Amino acid sequence: MTESNSNYVVGVDLGGTKILAGVYDANQNCLGSVKKSTKADRGPKEVVKRIARCIMDAVDECDLKLSQIKGIGIGAPGSVDPDQGIVLFAPNLKWKDFPLAEQLKKRLKVDVFLENDCNVCALGAYHGELKGEPESMVGIFLGTGIGGGLIFNRELHRGFNKTAGEIGHMVIDMHGPICGCGKNGCFEAIAGRASIYRHLHAEVQKGRETVLTTMLGKDLKGMKSGSLKKAMKRRDPLVSETILRAAEATGIAVASLINVINPEVVLLGGGVIEALERDMMPTIIQNAERYAMPGSIEGIQIIASSLGDDAGIYGSAVLAQMMLGCFTAGRTSSGD
Amino acid sequence: MTESNSNYVVGVDLGGTKILAGVYDANQNCLGSVKKSTKADRGPKEVVKRIARCIMDAVDECDLKLSQIKGIGIGAPGSVDPDQGIVLFAPNLKWKDFPLAEQLKKRLKVDVFLENDCNVCALGAYHGELKGEPESMVGIFLGTGIGGGLIFNRELHRGFNKTAGEIGHMVIDMHGPICGCGKNGCFEAIAGRASIYRHLHAEVQKGRETVLTTMLGKDLKGMKSGSLKKAMKRRDPLVSETILRAAEATGIAVASLINVINPEVVLLGGGVIEALERDMMPTIIQNAERYAMPGSIEGIQIIASSLGDDAGIYGSAVLAQMMLGCFTAGRTSSGD
Repeated sequence: MTESNSNYVVGVDLGGTKILAGVYDANQNCLGSVKKSTKADRGPKEVVKRIARCIMDAVDECDLKLSQIKGIGIGAPGSVDPDQGIVLFAPNLKWKDFPLAEQLKKRLKVDVFLENDCNVCALGAYHGELKGEPESMVGIFLGTGIGGGLIFNRELHRGFNKTAGEIGHMVIDMHGPICGCGKNGCFEAIAGRASIYRHLHAEVQKGRETVLTTMLGKDLKGMKSGSLKKAMKRRDPLVSETILRAAEATGIAVASLINVINPEVVLLGGGVIEALERDMMPTIIQNAERYAMPGSIEGIQIIASSLGDDAGIYGSAVLAQMMLGCFTAGRTSSGD
Repeated sequence: MTESNSNYVVGVDLGGTKILAGVYDANQNCLGSVKKSTKADRGPKEVVKRIARCIMDAVDECDLKLSQIKGIGIGAPGSVDPDQGIVLFAPNLKWKDFPLAEQLKKRLKVDVFLENDCNVCALGAYHGELKGEPESMVGIFLGTGIGGGLIFNRELHRGFNKTAGEIGHMVIDMHGPICGCGKNGCFEAIAGRASIYRHLHAEVQKGRETVLTTMLGKDLKGMKSGSLKKAMKRRDPLVSETILRAAEATGIAVASLINVINPEVVLLGGGVIEALERDMMPTIIQNAERYAMPGSIEGIQIIASSLGDDAGIYGSAVLAQMMLGCFTAGRTSSGD
């Protein structure tokens, strides 16, 4: 099934700092991928050019031509209108009502399908890791913020306003710290990387010590999930206590989702989980078990995603294949 | 369609204190209903006898015979196994692993279908009030505790362990008051009637005054939703502040559900809402709007149920018709 003119698609993961594009064949095998920086400050038109270039480079890398690409799926951060292909609001990109699909299609002459980035990550993890087997899945992605994607009845659940999955803005501590969204006690305000940064920064200003200041300076500028991982390896008390707090909050959020939705699988991903899986997962699972109602959690899998950065491009490729009506469920690559 | 031997079913709402049975025709018109006290302290076998008597009285009340009843639907409090017809755990009844459907069928020789009480209430409200029109609905029922029922893709969502809808045990205040389930800060621990009672009781013990002590004595024994309604009418400061707190928490829970699930309708019901709708709904809606993410709440209906006590029997009747394959969607009675 890798003959030319087969159902090749490109999956794109558009982030606030980087663009990732991967070329996939009909069996969802990744033939190659290319990464570029987003340069969001240059404005949306320039970003569209960069996305187009990233796609063309990836296609060329795989010795294919753009004319052989049947469709492009793209996951964008923020709220999107998938039917119109419009990014409604993306604070990380400073975009509002931008017709991304149309702009990209005009440039590449290939059909473009847009979806929220967490939804495509959920779709990617569901089909790529779980082979589309569970009936339902909740995907939770811990990065700068926290997002999610829901799979009900083996399909992406978009909700009435197509905004479902905003798991980061489930309130778990109504008298707790203020969130980026302006409200108190959102899950994201305790366990997202930006809130972890804010907490660490405030503690350092109060005079607490941490190896992070040696690594990054007193303002902790440029703190990434990797920095936290390094500090955890050195058993830094302030970072350990902060990560434990984030993991506890995540476990409580997982339990709430199990109590309410009772999905077959809860899958955790994103940069924070990727870097800190070993440090966080035991506490997450322990708290999920503690807070779940008796009988509600048995047999439910709570797992860390192993796709990492690939979840987004994989999911975007699956999205494109689904929209084109050429998605064949289940991964059939030799690796499986 | 009301000729004899038509598709008559009986819907039963089994509660901790009362049993309600209603006879329905093929078009979901209620032909008559009968209420009895549960007397749970007499043990499950005695309760089964009382349910059977309640059903027979209701059937007789409608000038029908048991042989004309095609099936019985029953909603029971606690966790149930609908496939096996077993009540797994019902703390209000002090039941554990009780084969209710089988016991009742043995007594009446009619097929019995069991479901969780909040699920049948959701089903009742969805088909009875909303005519099965919205694609999705979250039902939240505020009584002694708080339960819920989810409708996704126009169908009841039971979840992996068939325990979905435990909305009362969504954590919204992780450092907040302790819940009946033993954990801190569940939604139910702030807005359920038992927790409202605990809060009022504690405040009275601390010396705060309320008209409730005049009505019920210093231990507030026998406090019902109706007592709270009376106190609100008299503008009792302690009760007002407690109900406001419960309404705020409910609004936050509604917003979290809108952020995560994004249903078309959020329907609130149960004794607390029935008695205090006018006092609570404005605050609930205001807080839901405040805590929902931008763009996520537009067009979503947040409404109080008008079915009251009938939601349970109506939903149980719908359940029986669905299980028998004779449910015809949409209510067609002359009243609509």
